[in-house]
Amino acid sequence: MTEKPLILVTNDDSIKAPGIRALIETIRPFGRVVTVAPDRPQSGTAHAVTIAHPLRLELIHREKDYEEYTCTGTPADCVKLAFKVVMRRRPDFLFSGINHGTNASINIVYSGTMAAVLEGALAGVPSVGFSLCNYSLKADFVPSGPFIRTIAAKVIEHGLPAGTCLNVNIPDIPADKIKGIKVCRQSEGTWQEDFDEREDPNGQKYYWMKGVFVRVGNGQDTDQWALENNYISIVPVQFDLTANHAITYIKSLF
Amino acid sequence: MTEKPLILVTNDDSIKAPGIRALIETIRPFGRVVTVAPDRPQSGTAHAVTIAHPLRLELIHREKDYEEYTCTGTPADCVKLAFKVVMRRRPDFLFSGINHGTNASINIVYSGTMAAVLEGALAGVPSVGFSLCNYSLKADFVPSGPFIRTIAAKVIEHGLPAGTCLNVNIPDIPADKIKGIKVCRQSEGTWQEDFDEREDPNGQKYYWMKGVFVRVGNGQDTDQWALENNYISIVPVQFDLTANHAITYIKSLF
Repeated sequence: MTEKPLILVTNDDSIKAPGIRALIETIRPFGRVVTVAPDRPQSGTAHAVTIAHPLRLELIHREKDYEEYTCTGTPADCVKLAFKVVMRRRPDFLFSGINHGTNASINIVYSGTMAAVLEGALAGVPSVGFSLCNYSLKADFVPSGPFIRTIAAKVIEHGLPAGTCLNVNIPDIPADKIKGIKVCRQSEGTWQEDFDEREDPNGQKYYWMKGVFVRVGNGQDTDQWALENNYISIVPVQFDLTANHAITYIKSLF
Repeated sequence: MTEKPLILVTNDDSIKAPGIRALIETIRPFGRVVTVAPDRPQSGTAHAVTIAHPLRLELIHREKDYEEYTCTGTPADCVKLAFKVVMRRRPDFLFSGINHGTNASINIVYSGTMAAVLEGALAGVPSVGFSLCNYSLKADFVPSGPFIRTIAAKVIEHGLPAGTCLNVNIPDIPADKIKGIKVCRQSEGTWQEDFDEREDPNGQKYYWMKGVFVRVGNGQDTDQWALENNYISIVPVQFDLTANHAITYIKSLF
């Protein structure tokens, strides 16, 4: 490639999140970067798309090889608008994150960061989501930098198999404690929710969702095991949800 | 089971949608039914959960073996609240829909109807989503009735394998044209979006998302093929997104 690659950066924590600033800084040396990110936090929006309301885009900043936009929609909306309206073509690569909090195990199904990545993969763009296992806005993204650079460089050099994207999670530990990178499968796991029941000043009940993540099993080939053992996890991800192992049994019922 | 099974009914088109009324009517003879559905349309919300705002529940109606609630949240929120706050236990079965519009092929990743079903499966509840391939609020759900009854009866009799739920799509044709039920895999396919760019009265641009679904491939074992050939499609669904076929290659990069 003689021309610099065109790269889309997005996230779900909004343009104001420290995580996306760290990602932009790490990715910019690789090409012409366009950032299109939500104008407000969209954590937990999963793969939501906005069809009942119109969307707005705002150009925030433009300089040589860099443009930054905010969008009023979800992460999936940001990607669709970036491709069709902002770039007017599919970019060469898409990087999403750095998410404030884990997207390992079952968290992927709730993740706006990873929905953006799946949108990229659906359009045939090699796409990677990065998440740091720390929900705080004050999380330290510095140790992640060299690892993200390594992973991005590999993807930019080799691409990714069609229909496959990467879910990268980074343990929240100092750089010299990170043992390396492990390619894994998605761990079994679930959220056990609870609801905090409160009363408003009018005596009406309302509920706050809260919950704890419960790991199921402890396979050493899973992302959850890797993270708990100080490795960065990479899960190759695809979007066919068919339970192939159950087809024969379900056929026997009908 | 000597006691009647406890069944949760939900959807993403809201409590007011004709589709959920048709589903409630079909499912009620099977047990004690509790409906917890969004108070407004949530189509395209995918697996979004509400963590930045509190949720409210409202009891709308109660009679023998039937209760109906609305919730201010997403379909996934409805399921979580139903389990923890309304029923205070996991129900025996969960049925979601009838969705106004297809959830076959890639539509599953955007679907609130199917997110509710995946929430059920994650909690170990045998769960089925029903969708009619007609987006209109005036769609005719009558031809679906006997088929939904048959599928629900099978699931209530046999349960479903752990971690597996069903994505059922029904072609929008008269009952006597439906050739039968086919158990399928999820078809390849994608949405090709476009955006309608408009100007508001203040001269500011805004965008409406629109798009067309593009089927990729024509495998006779896919849900899309079944629907186009007048069959009801059933895809067994699971929530492990690992691209197992790509693990060896991705490992070779790192």
